[in-house]
Amino acid sequence: MKTEEKIAARIRDVKDFPVKGVVFKDITPVLKDISLFNEITGIFANRYKNSGIDKIIGIESRGFIFGMPLAVKMDIPFVPIRKKGKLPAETVSVSYQLEYGAACIEIHKDAVSKGEKALIIDDLLATGGTTNAAVELIEKLGGKAVAAAFAIELSFLKGRENIKNKELDVFSILKY
Amino acid sequence: MKTEEKIAARIRDVKDFPVKGVVFKDITPVLKDISLFNEITGIFANRYKNSGIDKIIGIESRGFIFGMPLAVKMDIPFVPIRKKGKLPAETVSVSYQLEYGAACIEIHKDAVSKGEKALIIDDLLATGGTTNAAVELIEKLGGKAVAAAFAIELSFLKGRENIKNKELDVFSILKY
Repeated sequence: MKTEEKIAARIRDVKDFPVKGVVFKDITPVLKDISLFNEITGIFANRYKNSGIDKIIGIESRGFIFGMPLAVKMDIPFVPIRKKGKLPAETVSVSYQLEYGAACIEIHKDAVSKGEKALIIDDLLATGGTTNAAVELIEKLGGKAVAAAFAIELSFLKGRENIKNKELDVFSILKY
Repeated sequence: MKTEEKIAARIRDVKDFPVKGVVFKDITPVLKDISLFNEITGIFANRYKNSGIDKIIGIESRGFIFGMPLAVKMDIPFVPIRKKGKLPAETVSVSYQLEYGAACIEIHKDAVSKGEKALIIDDLLATGGTTNAAVELIEKLGGKAVAAAFAIELSFLKGRENIKNKELDVFSILKY
């Protein structure tokens, strides 16, 4: 079975979460299947092994779950992007609209150096708002966002088309 | 150099975060040092390799960063404990006091089965409030919390003495 089929078999659809009318894709069963989880990070690692990535950037908080094991696998430093007020040292921040409401995310000022190449990791690509904000954070620090990788993409939300940085390699394993 | 000395050398002290008068231990520099990060998860994996752990439980959100790579290393299913309202399927929840304010955390009802042994992972042991709440969540599901492991322990907050479950193996690598 292909990795995307295995993911689809594990994903749990939860109706009316976080708001009525939305069917939420629950990825927690994937985290119980370490063999499948390793396939996912293996696909990411293989795709970016020759991309000269300097930092793997995980977006709070499910991006941490996929990002840190990938950083370990690729032996590349990990950097968290967090919700406003969570990172203790000096930060830069970006506010944006997301699928259900507004948000503000931050990165430590010394997390990415000028000219460094960054790979953004999150579990799911929805409207692309968070990805755009993450790219902006990396660029504010003088870094270059090379790619953004997701386990799942909700294609019907057209997040891919909404990504402002047209050079960004946007990659997902399972598309709905 | 010992692992705890290496961690201490990486940790960044941030004054007056999250509130005035507190010196926050910023662990993000540790995440950039994959070799050191692997030492940390290696110490955890070695300590619990013969404990018959069924689930590794990471507490949102820095517990995800340490917990999932440990789950991968030990080949044991990973379960997230999250702040209220974040987990989509049916949950049990516990409210508690923490160092700065109050909190409520949740776990999916099907995350731990009756009789299963759980290892709780977080970056830091402070007052022990979150650990007690996590133990309570696991016990509500009929599981047994066997151990709780942290990269850092703020001994002066006496969290260890505050842990209600006296059978819990409370372990930390670096103690302040």
